[in-house]
Amino acid sequence: MSEIEIEVVLVEPKYDGNIGAVARVMKNFGFKSLTLVSPCEIGDFGRAMASHARDILENARIISSIDEIEADILVGTTSISGRDDADHLRYPCLTPEELIRGLKGVKGRVAILFGREDFGLFNEELRKCHILVKILTNPEYPTLNLSHAVAIVLYEMSKMRGRGERKVTRKENIERLMRHLDELFEELSYPKYKKDKTLMIVYRIIGRASLTTREYMTLMGIIRRIRRRLKSLKEEGS
Amino acid sequence: MSEIEIEVVLVEPKYDGNIGAVARVMKNFGFKSLTLVSPCEIGDFGRAMASHARDILENARIISSIDEIEADILVGTTSISGRDDADHLRYPCLTPEELIRGLKGVKGRVAILFGREDFGLFNEELRKCHILVKILTNPEYPTLNLSHAVAIVLYEMSKMRGRGERKVTRKENIERLMRHLDELFEELSYPKYKKDKTLMIVYRIIGRASLTTREYMTLMGIIRRIRRRLKSLKEEGS
Repeated sequence: MSEIEIEVVLVEPKYDGNIGAVARVMKNFGFKSLTLVSPCEIGDFGRAMASHARDILENARIISSIDEIEADILVGTTSISGRDDADHLRYPCLTPEELIRGLKGVKGRVAILFGREDFGLFNEELRKCHILVKILTNPEYPTLNLSHAVAIVLYEMSKMRGRGERKVTRKENIERLMRHLDELFEELSYPKYKKDKTLMIVYRIIGRASLTTREYMTLMGIIRRIRRRLKSLKEEGS
Repeated sequence: MSEIEIEVVLVEPKYDGNIGAVARVMKNFGFKSLTLVSPCEIGDFGRAMASHARDILENARIISSIDEIEADILVGTTSISGRDDADHLRYPCLTPEELIRGLKGVKGRVAILFGREDFGLFNEELRKCHILVKILTNPEYPTLNLSHAVAIVLYEMSKMRGRGERKVTRKENIERLMRHLDELFEELSYPKYKKDKTLMIVYRIIGRASLTTREYMTLMGIIRRIRRRLKSLKEEGS
């Protein structure tokens, strides 16, 4: 677990469905702390959208101004970025990836502010933020649904945590597999130039797939079985 | 713009609000092609959730089975990943980042399948997918809202835009390759249960690698050469 504490802040959200959906995605990515600034009332629909994350809704802290946020770093999100230095209020905007790169190793409390569904964060709110973030979208229709914006930022933040589920097989194993394949190709009397080219092509395919140990063993099993069969047929023939 | 064409496929979605939200986030990230497999009816709420992306809803293609999908690569999404090699159907699952790394440079049509809100994709549907993807979530509450899952995958895919150079081989070719491999395994007297499992594992490796036409032909050449040799040795023997 990272030592960074993340707080999600929704500023004057208007639809309880969005608040519920935000609570759900927070729980999906293992975040707990939700702060609501002057939110709409949360009814049955909002609770339904929260699904198994009602505890996050119920424990949400309700405040009336962003000045009450207790965090060391305020990150503001916006769907409009400044085009250049002339717009010092909105420039530069980081991408979510750049944000996590910047926060890597930070120890402390970070609040990420998401604005109103229609007007986003006001300029005086953006002015108080230490970092601005914008998700790169299609200029034809840049405004993400509120809970989608939260989902994407939290998804990126969750990458800061430890990763790696898929254990790939070791380099030595791949080399061993290639040797066996080379021997099989010899037995199939591939002409040398063709054999090398074919091996290279297979090597690339296997490389791109980044094999698991199981998959490596399966491929070895297939090659072994072919070679054994060739051998026994040859012996029968002689 | 990339030459990879992405098609979002929702399999039996139950809530029109989710379908609308998916249409919106598709437009946010500049994707257009939506396919719905036996969807619920889309009412006012669904259209409201689509907001400025009603055109995507209206142009959605409606089909009744995933077999009607016209794409070369099928990517299945799941919230449950195989824990280890023992679960060959769901293992390995790529992260969305690994997916885009694998698809980088690909030229061709890719369908990304998202399952039902409650049951996800069925096993027989997952079996037809060339690549499996899972968004890493909190094991306490792993299931993302449908439109959140789409938002995150499309957000990652949108990072990939660039020129496609690697033309992938067609789906029919992969099927042909698998049939030849099946016949080879028959000739090698694989026990049925083992043959099916082994074929599935090879299918996944090949799917992750997204073969070029040249690579497909090379693999076909290897299989043909092995079969020819087995046949001639057998004839010599008899």
